[in-house]
Amino acid sequence: MSDILIVGSVAFDTLRIAGCIHNKILGGSATYAAMAAAYFTRVQLVAVVGTDFPRSAIEMLAKRGIDLAGLETVEGQTFHWEGAYNDDLGSRTTIRTDLNVFADFQPKIPASYRSTPYVMLGNIHPELQFQVLEQIDRPRLVVADTMNLWIDIGREALCRLLERIDVLVVNDEEARQFSGEKNLVKAAKTIQKQGPSTIIIKKGEHGAILFHEDQIFCLPAMPLDSVADPTGAGDTFAGALIGYLGRIDQNSHVAFRKAVVYGSTLSSFCVERVGTKGLESLQVEDIYKRFKQFEKLVSFPTDPDSF
Amino acid sequence: MSDILIVGSVAFDTLRIAGCIHNKILGGSATYAAMAAAYFTRVQLVAVVGTDFPRSAIEMLAKRGIDLAGLETVEGQTFHWEGAYNDDLGSRTTIRTDLNVFADFQPKIPASYRSTPYVMLGNIHPELQFQVLEQIDRPRLVVADTMNLWIDIGREALCRLLERIDVLVVNDEEARQFSGEKNLVKAAKTIQKQGPSTIIIKKGEHGAILFHEDQIFCLPAMPLDSVADPTGAGDTFAGALIGYLGRIDQNSHVAFRKAVVYGSTLSSFCVERVGTKGLESLQVEDIYKRFKQFEKLVSFPTDPDSF
Repeated sequence: MSDILIVGSVAFDTLRIAGCIHNKILGGSATYAAMAAAYFTRVQLVAVVGTDFPRSAIEMLAKRGIDLAGLETVEGQTFHWEGAYNDDLGSRTTIRTDLNVFADFQPKIPASYRSTPYVMLGNIHPELQFQVLEQIDRPRLVVADTMNLWIDIGREALCRLLERIDVLVVNDEEARQFSGEKNLVKAAKTIQKQGPSTIIIKKGEHGAILFHEDQIFCLPAMPLDSVADPTGAGDTFAGALIGYLGRIDQNSHVAFRKAVVYGSTLSSFCVERVGTKGLESLQVEDIYKRFKQFEKLVSFPTDPDSF
Repeated sequence: MSDILIVGSVAFDTLRIAGCIHNKILGGSATYAAMAAAYFTRVQLVAVVGTDFPRSAIEMLAKRGIDLAGLETVEGQTFHWEGAYNDDLGSRTTIRTDLNVFADFQPKIPASYRSTPYVMLGNIHPELQFQVLEQIDRPRLVVADTMNLWIDIGREALCRLLERIDVLVVNDEEARQFSGEKNLVKAAKTIQKQGPSTIIIKKGEHGAILFHEDQIFCLPAMPLDSVADPTGAGDTFAGALIGYLGRIDQNSHVAFRKAVVYGSTLSSFCVERVGTKGLESLQVEDIYKRFKQFEKLVSFPTDPDSF
């Protein structure tokens, strides 16, 4: 079992969903990723919060075994994002983004984290993601997330980052935007040529596709009859993915396939409740059970037919 | 091995794709479905064409063993549809629809087809689909396709039809539109309550979901690095599905899962070439091989992990 290091945002989210406003609840890419990963292994968190960040949230994270030596508290307000979801939760609009203390975030990696073998670079400016790698020993595996904004305004830094990472996690639009290829298989191959041997394309309710070297694995999302809030599903996916790889300390192709299933498992729990609630009180048995549901969801008889 | 009866449209399609115009090529829901199904079992076709329908197309269909006793030729022009695809082939616009002889289509089921045990009602007005069922003995399995237009203008007839069919094949938008439910699981359950024990939701490049009684099976689409033309993929899927079920003459849950894989297999060949070209010269080995690729695409190790 290896430790993992997660760098990203810890934030407050205000969410407008299905006629309700959830005001300033706990959010942020690193929060979701760390909470998901903590079900699998020991997690070290590097992020910044303001002096308004509540003790109770710190305690909730610490209680899960998340190492908070890298969680910096800075005078000012915590990053705040407000978004509104459309009726079918398929898309969302940003209403406001208050970067606050996150505006000047410079990830500082504590000395005790520098040889952590598994590293997750959450969705922050690729220049900052790069700076993280400059502060640490060469890890066994680096996973990075990104977003359309950085593809637009930080492409050069992103290209430099790609040469240093093993796994890029993006959604389908981002993969198309970055590669200039409409076809997702071509898009993934194009990105692989720029560095990462593994590309994972997240497609929300349509599941995920793993491109690992020259192999492809597709997993549909678990069909749920009630989705409360898609916020953080992608970060949860990535957190559980690297958490599982860290736990088994393997990067083989089959390990990646299983990691995608665990990523999807934790994501499916995440979206069933608002904010981080769905990740707060899972039991190991719940995780096992849903993993087995994925097996049942996609399996079919493979005995040969004669024609 | 049982015969299957397919009722639907045989048409000319003019397709504008990727800067090319493919003028008046063979198309129609029943054409795609019959060509796909014919790889699995004997197919009887009921449709109407005009006197302009070429001998060569008739011969091509007959050569595949498709029984054309139910293909009526009427004075006038064959149904013609013209559509334009957007750049990523994800959506299309209808440019013109010339119903021609299809406007007065009244399916007449030849006496020799009346006890055919597997029946596919292609995408035509639900009133006409209903009339087909009135002309035949109770089949072992009835699969019906429909579209947004009939949900809008033929809902009452569609509701009556649902009580008489076993399998409804729709896309995700149609399932949401018909049921009034945004959530696909709820949408499928709502439709199941109106009659069909099986709902198959086609999601194009995102695959398909089978709701069979209280079980769910999800299959992603085969990721292809080159898609030439999505036209007919849904009809091909449905044709191969019922063709396979007819061949093995089984309606068990596992038979349905496998039928969805064969449906997706033939669809993946269909979209690789323009029009019906991708369905014209497959070998049994090609079908086997792609079926096995689906197995590889979705499989993951299921040995237990300890946490």
